[in-house]
Amino acid sequence: MVSGIVPVITLTTDFGVRDWFVGTMKGVIAGINPEATVIDLTHEIPAGDIPSGAFALRASYAFFPKGTIHVAVVDPGVGSLRNAIAVQTKSYFFVGPDNGVLSWALAREKIKTCCSLTNTAYSLESVSRTFHGRDIFAPVAAHLSQGVPIRKLGPPLKSMFRLDWPEPRHGPGRFAGEIVYIDRFGNAITNLDEVAIRASGPGVLEVLVRGKKLCALNEFYQSVANGKPVAVLGSTGFVEIAINGGDAAQRFRLKRGDSVMVRATRVRR
Amino acid sequence: MVSGIVPVITLTTDFGVRDWFVGTMKGVIAGINPEATVIDLTHEIPAGDIPSGAFALRASYAFFPKGTIHVAVVDPGVGSLRNAIAVQTKSYFFVGPDNGVLSWALAREKIKTCCSLTNTAYSLESVSRTFHGRDIFAPVAAHLSQGVPIRKLGPPLKSMFRLDWPEPRHGPGRFAGEIVYIDRFGNAITNLDEVAIRASGPGVLEVLVRGKKLCALNEFYQSVANGKPVAVLGSTGFVEIAINGGDAAQRFRLKRGDSVMVRATRVRR
Amino acid sequence: MVSGIVPVITLTTDFGVRDWFVGTMKGVIAGINPEATVIDLTHEIPAGDIPSGAFALRASYAFFPKGTIHVAVVDPGVGSLRNAIAVQTKSYFFVGPDNGVLSWALAREKIKTCCSLTNTAYSLESVSRTFHGRDIFAPVAAHLSQGVPIRKLGPPLKSMFRLDWPEPRHGPGRFAGEIVYIDRFGNAITNLDEVAIRASGPGVLEVLVRGKKLCALNEFYQSVANGKPVAVLGSTGFVEIAINGGDAAQRFRLKRGDSVMVRATRVRR
Repeated sequence: MVSGIVPVITLTTDFGVRDWFVGTMKGVIAGINPEATVIDLTHEIPAGDIPSGAFALRASYAFFPKGTIHVAVVDPGVGSLRNAIAVQTKSYFFVGPDNGVLSWALAREKIKTCCSLTNTAYSLESVSRTFHGRDIFAPVAAHLSQGVPIRKLGPPLKSMFRLDWPEPRHGPGRFAGEIVYIDRFGNAITNLDEVAIRASGPGVLEVLVRGKKLCALNEFYQSVANGKPVAVLGSTGFVEIAINGGDAAQRFRLKRGDSVMVRATRVRR
Repeated sequence: MVSGIVPVITLTTDFGVRDWFVGTMKGVIAGINPEATVIDLTHEIPAGDIPSGAFALRASYAFFPKGTIHVAVVDPGVGSLRNAIAVQTKSYFFVGPDNGVLSWALAREKIKTCCSLTNTAYSLESVSRTFHGRDIFAPVAAHLSQGVPIRKLGPPLKSMFRLDWPEPRHGPGRFAGEIVYIDRFGNAITNLDEVAIRASGPGVLEVLVRGKKLCALNEFYQSVANGKPVAVLGSTGFVEIAINGGDAAQRFRLKRGDSVMVRATRVRR
Repeated sequence: MVSGIVPVITLTTDFGVRDWFVGTMKGVIAGINPEATVIDLTHEIPAGDIPSGAFALRASYAFFPKGTIHVAVVDPGVGSLRNAIAVQTKSYFFVGPDNGVLSWALAREKIKTCCSLTNTAYSLESVSRTFHGRDIFAPVAAHLSQGVPIRKLGPPLKSMFRLDWPEPRHGPGRFAGEIVYIDRFGNAITNLDEVAIRASGPGVLEVLVRGKKLCALNEFYQSVANGKPVAVLGSTGFVEIAINGGDAAQRFRLKRGDSVMVRATRVRR
């Protein structure tokens, strides 16, 4: 345990909450370190959707106290040859499969160590082929929360699998990016951040989706009338497209990868 | 912290559990007061549905230990001019937007203080326009759980926004009210309570919905055969309309606001 | 409290997370024993589906530390004559209605005591007719977690209601069983375990559903191409039928009770 501090372990998975999967992970953790505080980030990542898991972790990990152990298990390759890893950065630990699910959070962190989780002393005695969340990742996180040094978990790795982050493209007075996540309200979160907005020029900024103008950038959802589309700088730090009181993704059939552009409006005569 | 007691913070929101919103609120709380126990009331209030949030809180807040801090964030006006408030009553704290979501619980409590949450010392350093749950309400609740006096959070408010509670109407030997909440089983909870039932007269009580007789009031769901409608005095203290083993709201297309009457049956010849 | 150990209470219910039901159970527990760690197994058991609840508990209870108190409330008969019980085994406590929901876990445990929960001193003062999870089972679990001896809860019972477990049938070189649970990924979990597999003979094992060959038994999901069916020895210790990257239950319309056979393939010429 890190010097008297209550250790926090977060869980991000695609296990859903319909079955007992998440509960058993917590049971395993409680059996190893009953003092750990386990916090669910989400278990509703669409099954096998690694980019959504990576984005959820990136959007939230930094709001946790120093020393938090972030476990992310979106793991369609469970049981196959992919590595299981633990990563220590300046402020956090990250635990999960080496398939990119950790990589968008790690891209913003200074990595100190990355280990392959091969030391069976820190897994359950019997490891299934299909549920490493319970059998490897949960016990590893619990041991880390007790202060086990990361290097004991297995040999260091030189490189990790990294998911490409879609970088926005800069044009004259405009920024072009794409939708990277649809949230439960139907808000479409893009990869365009404050920098992109500032660089788009002065004046009213309009937002185009798939080449067609959809709405203007505004301050908050209720800046427009109920039922009207609006873009705001959302809580993740990215531009998101919403409908005040409605579901933008459903209404405009928005999906991940759709092109989005922010540009200053031309003055019309 | 209130004299050695483990402080409890409850969360009632419309954030859902599909994204990271609730998890980050808990991360913020853990960073301020790692000793707090955070309990989810529900995060599945329909998006922006303030009365459902208000009813969920009213139905449950009193089952928590004294000193519990109840946070309710159903907040379609986030970022606009509505106030953010904290309220201290004889036994609890309540934290949320001043849009009525706290008001049905507060109607049953003796209010001591109500403050506007304007002191930025108790919010996150950077407050977004769209996620005050994370940036204001979570840190305020965490600080309250550490014993920060409520008056430090901001200036006192003289009045709050209150949602109308639909009072049942008394007729000769009958009580008329309405459906106020549909639960996950499809049970329709009304605003008719034990008092209404006792006042409805002796003998078998029948329950009418939208003017048509639906079922009789009985002791428990299995008082009737499987698949049959039944009304019971539910766990919230209100009459609820159910189907034994089925979904009454779906079968009878019940919805909030539908009129409900309880009356003693006339003796038939 | 069991000798300085942080007591764990698990909850398995069909209450869903849309309403406040689970939250109020946790509030009641926190009011009695604020030190207890409450872990959700699942609240998404289909309404009234006792076998699914029994299977979820059986699949997970043993991953929790000794002394854990497992509460399972799938209770369509709430308020009627069914007993409420608490059971102490060598390693755990189990609390719930006596309708079979505890029985598949208990079948694997050595039972020491079983009591009927009739001592009102360990329930809430006012017990509703429809929500014994909050009014009886939660407070009983909290009192057990504080070290209250189980015999104080009520008189011992000689027998419990037990749900039939569908035993697989052994034929020459093959094992016949059935689907017992469909998980959130659409994987169909059967009652055929490692023993059945070993007894099915050497060589490639094929899996038949409703008499038709569906796939072969393999090591993990990605042993087959994306979109292809595969059977694996799953994390519950039972054979499960899956589609790599897909939903087997949906594609093949699998449902609980469907017959499944594992047998060694004949060599074809």
